[in-house]
Order: sequence, then structure tokens, then C-alpha cells
Amino acid sequence: MNSIERTWQFVDDNSSQLIADLQRFVQQKSISSSGEGVEVCAGLLASMMEEVGIDAKVMPTEGLPVVFGHVAADRDDAPTLLIYTHYDVQPAEPEEDWESPPWEARIVEDRIIGRGTTDAKGNLMAHIKAVQALKATGGMPINIKFIFDGEEESGSPSLPAFVDANRDLLQADAALSFDGGFDAGNVPRINLGTSGLLFVQLKARGGQNDLHSARARLVPNPAWKLVWALSSMKDKDSNILIDGFYDDVRLPTPRERELLEQAGWDDEEQKRSLGTDEFVGGVSGTDALQQLLFTPTCNIAGFASGYVGEGRKTLLPATAAVNIDFRLVSDQDPSDILAKLRAHLDRHGFEDIEIDHEGGGIEPSRTNPDDPFVQVVVDAAKTVYQKDPTVRPTGDASGRQAVWLAGKLGIPGAGTAVGPPDWRGHAANEFMTIQHFLDGIKYAATIWTNWAETHASNQ
Amino acid sequence: MNSIERTWQFVDDNSSQLIADLQRFVQQKSISSSGEGVEVCAGLLASMMEEVGIDAKVMPTEGLPVVFGHVAADRDDAPTLLIYTHYDVQPAEPEEDWESPPWEARIVEDRIIGRGTTDAKGNLMAHIKAVQALKATGGMPINIKFIFDGEEESGSPSLPAFVDANRDLLQADAALSFDGGFDAGNVPRINLGTSGLLFVQLKARGGQNDLHSARARLVPNPAWKLVWALSSMKDKDSNILIDGFYDDVRLPTPRERELLEQAGWDDEEQKRSLGTDEFVGGVSGTDALQQLLFTPTCNIAGFASGYVGEGRKTLLPATAAVNIDFRLVSDQDPSDILAKLRAHLDRHGFEDIEIDHEGGGIEPSRTNPDDPFVQVVVDAAKTVYQKDPTVRPTGDASGRQAVWLAGKLGIPGAGTAVGPPDWRGHAANEFMTIQHFLDGIKYAATIWTNWAETHASNQ
Repeated sequence: MNSIERTWQFVDDNSSQLIADLQRFVQQKSISSSGEGVEVCAGLLASMMEEVGIDAKVMPTEGLPVVFGHVAADRDDAPTLLIYTHYDVQPAEPEEDWESPPWEARIVEDRIIGRGTTDAKGNLMAHIKAVQALKATGGMPINIKFIFDGEEESGSPSLPAFVDANRDLLQADAALSFDGGFDAGNVPRINLGTSGLLFVQLKARGGQNDLHSARARLVPNPAWKLVWALSSMKDKDSNILIDGFYDDVRLPTPRERELLEQAGWDDEEQKRSLGTDEFVGGVSGTDALQQLLFTPTCNIAGFASGYVGEGRKTLLPATAAVNIDFRLVSDQDPSDILAKLRAHLDRHGFEDIEIDHEGGGIEPSRTNPDDPFVQVVVDAAKTVYQKDPTVRPTGDASGRQAVWLAGKLGIPGAGTAVGPPDWRGHAANEFMTIQHFLDGIKYAATIWTNWAETHASNQ
Repeated sequence: MNSIERTWQFVDDNSSQLIADLQRFVQQKSISSSGEGVEVCAGLLASMMEEVGIDAKVMPTEGLPVVFGHVAADRDDAPTLLIYTHYDVQPAEPEEDWESPPWEARIVEDRIIGRGTTDAKGNLMAHIKAVQALKATGGMPINIKFIFDGEEESGSPSLPAFVDANRDLLQADAALSFDGGFDAGNVPRINLGTSGLLFVQLKARGGQNDLHSARARLVPNPAWKLVWALSSMKDKDSNILIDGFYDDVRLPTPRERELLEQAGWDDEEQKRSLGTDEFVGGVSGTDALQQLLFTPTCNIAGFASGYVGEGRKTLLPATAAVNIDFRLVSDQDPSDILAKLRAHLDRHGFEDIEIDHEGGGIEPSRTNPDDPFVQVVVDAAKTVYQKDPTVRPTGDASGRQAVWLAGKLGIPGAGTAVGPPDWRGHAANEFMTIQHFLDGIKYAATIWTNWAETHASNQ
């Protein structure tokens, strides 16, 4: 029995205690949208980390606290991994929809049912328990820094400033996040990127008040102003016309394209699930998937002006507002795109259109799929789950998890997950299976062990 | 004392009874928006018409009834005048805002306070009482047909079909309406036209449901579709680009332009009252007034798609709708413009944008200011009120009153008013002054008498 096999054996031998610790963690509420229980949960988490030999501290942010942890390798020359996930959870209302109480973490057959069992307390606890298992068997193969977010379910608003203020503390050789569950068919999944996001509201003003629409002959209409500004920003073929918008778009590499081709994209199934008869630009097959993952958008998320409801109101609106979100791809920078948007509007005679931009944008991020760290994660998934994981070169949505952190810190990053498929995210009866949780501990330990070996052989 | 002086004397001598009849008429509710009292009021009105020798009948429409009346001239070869006004009124809520109960028509000093005293029961009753005064003195100088609308405050939806079904009954030599009050400065006002109106809703559809906005890379966005369609319809300089849109626009004649120049338009005052710093196209002076009265619009009255409210929602909307009203000018035809809009959208690749068009459009109308009938009304105003009336070659708003009727019937038409300025239209404490009501009776009688003379001398 080699070292990793002994670690796995420890997990199987101690499963009751490992599961009981996850239950204890789930039973402590930590709802970031209301703040309920979050601070208490941070303290509980830090003490559970200390119990297994992780040096832990609860660190303040502009919002809810980060729990930071550090555990040193039991060998020399080991690399350092930065692990991101979150200890906050979604609310559980309406609680009567749950087959067992959401904060009880009751075991029903092969499942642990409760809010956060998968998202992300089960994913998080897999790491803590992997440290425990390794320390009880072969020792820690690598150095690990943990950054556990308390605001992920609220969009991680305080994370950028926290990261900027703690760059030295967070320095590492790679970043990894565990969150969510497997793909359909119980296939492990590895994400190598996320989209960026810039959200703005454009506002235009006409007269001081809404007016009788006959006055539109003399008083400028703010809705028309936005229509003209918008049509100067994107043409009917969906080309975004803002000068320099595409400058920093990094096209997929041949390796990334290869990953897309392996993804098993099905046009008809996707069209059905999205409820559309056609894709933008008439794309199909791998090209459609590439468009979904590797192209930026300029999306109208809302347009409100005047009155559109029961009955006819012939009015000239005083104000108009449009919400736009830009999904960005590497290496577009949200603040650069914001500046280009302002310049575009000014150049086209829309100096008086106001841009409202609350909260920072989210930077897009993408890791090189050929980075050795990625191969370590892929190999660990194959070893533990005995099947090839889905490797996505990037995701369509935006977030501030490990690949985003990696981008900020200039290191490779990946995101993966240990929960079951169909784990009922954000809904009633969220669950983790006992098998997925125990396998998740083994998955974490195997990634670390493999990486230490790869790293040593590369020295 | 000539004939018209005897008629005026009758008004002064019988003022108490004339005023009491107006009060009786106001006391009967006739709220078209709810229907409350309308049918009863139609019956009361018909009986009050019969009392003074008008042959009256309550005629059904698709909605609330029209009260039609006919009174023959007491001389041969007299012309026939079609008089339009309405017997329905606005609601009076909140009644506690009134200084005396809205349905009491109480006399307070020189005023009769009550809902409909000016709009339009006082205007209407001036005609009935003018018939009474003339019949009691020199006899009826002309033939009169009355069309009293029961749905004016609800946009007169049943009137077009009623007119089409009763063209023979309504045939006349000219049309006249009395509604509302004097201009500021207590100046009588004569309108020779109204704008037309076409109201449409354009609807576009994207996916089956609102989606996560990252999916905008593949699923068409209906708000963008409307933006592109709209920008194809009107350019930044407010030129309407729908093929043939301006074909039937009749420019103002030199005489109409002269009337505009006499109107005393004040840019600064108008900008203040409209709450704008600039007029569309940078026009000023009489050109601004001409633009207000003689140019058509394509106005966005409402635009609704997705979400614009508290917080940020990055969604891809499933639907988008825009309300557009076109103010039309003579001789544009709403149904022709609707057909041109459909053709425009189809030609520009927007076949899938739906046009919702409930209720017919309103035709624009304009009477030749040099028509002898117009001079009759102007002269009568000068005689009764001892001041020059404001003559507007057309109005900016749209409606189905006498000039519209005249347009449908191919005869000259004009609109005028007998109420006081600042009569608190549609608000609490609407009032008519006793003086304006009695003068209004004399005004009606004088118009009719003058027209009979003009007509006779032209034979």
C-alpha cells in the first residue's frame, strides 16, 4: 500500500466522523444575503481547521469575513496551492418544501440533505478532511493556503479589495476551487476559465416631466436618444462597434478548440433547453460552443422608458434607462471597456448620456490547458473516479473563483467540484451523497499528492 | 333693437332659468370611464332638447349612446350646421378635494362649481339654450343637427363607426364644436384643425423564457431587435425613414403661416413650460410653432424589456415591447401609415416583429382658414366678446371633434369654446362662470344668425 492508498484507507475507516463533521458545519447557518449566522460560522470553520492542524484566522473585509488558513508541507521544496471556496450559503425558504429540515443535515439513505451540503460546505469540508487524512497518514505533500469566502452567494463584492490588500499573503504557485457538482452522467468537471463582466446603466433625460406626446415635435425624447446610442454600439449582425472593443480578445488556441470538440455539444438539445429556434449568427456545432465561451457580448438586460401596460398612454417620457451587461473574455479589462464605451458615446454625440457603473467589473480569466497543474487535476480525477473528466477551457458565466484569483495573481488556476450531479442548487432538498463527499476528500488529497510528485520531478 | 339684440335680451332676462337648466344637467352624473349615469343622462338631455323644440333621439353605438338632435330653420334656403360636443364627463374623485360637492353644481359668487360645468355640459347647454332664445325671439335662422357624444372622455372609440353608419343623417354644410375654455387672458379661441394619431405596439420575442445573460452569445435578444428596427425608422436628426411617410403631408399655406405669425409664440416661455433647454432640430420662433402644429412625429411612448430596477440583474429578456405614437398631419391617413410601417419592417428584415394595433387611428383634419364659415365664427366672437379671437390653423393634439367630423364629411369645420380660462379641466373644482355661460348662449346664437345672413347674401 503506497502513501495515497493509506490516505484513502483512512477516509474509508473514519467515514462516520468525517461525515459528522460535515453535518456539524452545515447545521451552522451562514446566509450571506441576510448575514444570518455568517460570523458564527466563520468562527466554527476556523476552529474546525485548527482541529486538523491548519493555522486559521477570521479576517475582516469591507463586508462579511474571509476565513484564511495555512498549512505547511511536511517535506522541503513543496509548491504552494491556493484553495478558494466559500462557507456562505443560499437561504432555505420556503423550508416546508424540504423533505427534511434544511439546517439539520439529516442522512436519508445515501444522502446528506441540507442547505450548503454541496454548495459549498461539502466541497469545502473535503479539503479540511483531506488535510486531516494526509496528516494522519503520509503527511502534507504541499503547502496550502485557504481562502474561504463569506459572500460568494452575494457576488463576492468585497473579494477584489481583499485580494488587492493581501497579495503577499495569497502568493502561491497555483489556485484551485471546489464548488458545485458533477456534470450529467456523473462525470467530473474541470473549468479552466470564467467570463468577465461589466455592468452599466445608460441614462438619458428629455423634458423635466413626462409630457403629452404631441410635444415630441419640440422636446427631445430620451428613449430615442438611447435607441440611437445603442444602435451605434452594435449592428444587426451583432458586431460590437465600440472602437477597440475586440483589441484584447484572445482567440482559443488549437488545444482549447480541441477541448471544445471533445465537449459533446448538441445543437438541437441546446436549442431546446434555451428555447430558441436559431443561434445568433446562424452558428452550429463546435462553432456555437466556441461562440458561447470565447466571444464577448453587449447585452440589453433591461430597457425602461415611458409606459407600456394596460391601455394606451400617448406620452413623451422624461427619462429612459437601459441596463447593459458586457460579458468579457480574456484579456479584456472591464475598466478599459468602460473607458472605451464613454469615448464611443462622446464621439457619437451622446455626451449627455450618463453611464452609471456601481461596483467593479469582473475580470475574465483563462488558464493554459497545457499547464502541468491542469494535468495534475485531470489525472487525479481519472484516478479517483475512474473516468475522464470534462475539461472546459472556459465558462460562459462570470465569477470570482480560483481561475479569477489565478488571473489576479499571475498563476495557473482551475475549478472543479465534488458534489453529485443534480444536487438541487439553490433549491429545496439540496444534497450531497456520502459517496461523493468521501470521494471528494480522496480527490483533494490525490491532487495535492500528484502535484508534489510532478513538482519534484520538474525541479 | 334688431333680431340678434332681442335674442341677447332674452338671455339676460331669463338668466336664472337658463342657469338652473345647466345645474340640472350637471347634477346628473355621466361618467364614461365607468359608465355611471351615462344612459340616464342621455335620456335627460334628449328631454331637455325636446323641451325647447329640438327633435331628439338617443341612438345606440357600439359603446355608450349618441344623443342626436335636429331643429329646422324658420326660413327657407337656410344652411345646415352640424354641432358636435359631448355630454359625458370625467370622474370627480377624490370628492373631498372639492370646495362644494362636484355633482351639486352649486353657485358660489360668480361661478357654477361642478364636474362637467365647462367640459362639456356648459358648452353643450349653451347650444340648447340658444335654440330656446332664438325660438322665443326671431326664430331659428339655420337648420341644426346635433351630435352629442357619450364617450369623448374615453377617446370616442365608437364615433368613427357611428359616423360611417349615419353619413346621410349627419350631412350638413359645416361643422362646429364647443368644448373647453378660453385662452389665457380671457381670449376666445378658434381651432381649425387637429392632429391625427396612429398608436401601435411593436413586439419582439427572443428565447422562451428570460435567460442568464451569458446565453446572449447564442440566443437572440428581442430588445436589440427593437432597437435596430427603431433606428431604421428614424434617424438622429428626427427624419422619419419609413418609405412614403411624408408623401401626403400638406404644408401650411401662406395664410396658415400668417396665422402662426400672429400667435405670439414665445420660445423662452415655451421652453420653460415644457422643461427643455432646446427644441428638436434647433428651431425657434414661428418655425418652432409651425413644427409643433404642421409636422408628424414617430414618438416612443414606452419601451419595456427585461429588468431595470433596484439591484443588477444580468438577464437576457425573452420579450420586448415598444409603444409608438405617430402624430399625423393632413392629409396623412393612419391606415396608410400602418401599411407603410409594416412594409418598412418587412423590407428591413424585421418580418418577425409583431405590430399590435388596437382601435382605429384618428385622421388628421384641417379646414381652410379662408372658408367663409370660419369668418362667420371669427366675426361672431368679435361681436360677442369685443376682442379678436386667437385663430389656430391646427392643434397639436388629436381628437374626434368638429374638424375631424368635417374632414370625414367633406365640409368646413371649426372648434371653439365658451368656458372661462383656467377652468380646472379634469381636476377638482371645475367651474363655469355665469358670465361665460350666458355669453356662450349669445355666441352660439350670433354664429348661427351671422351664418344665415352670409349664406343668404352668397346665394
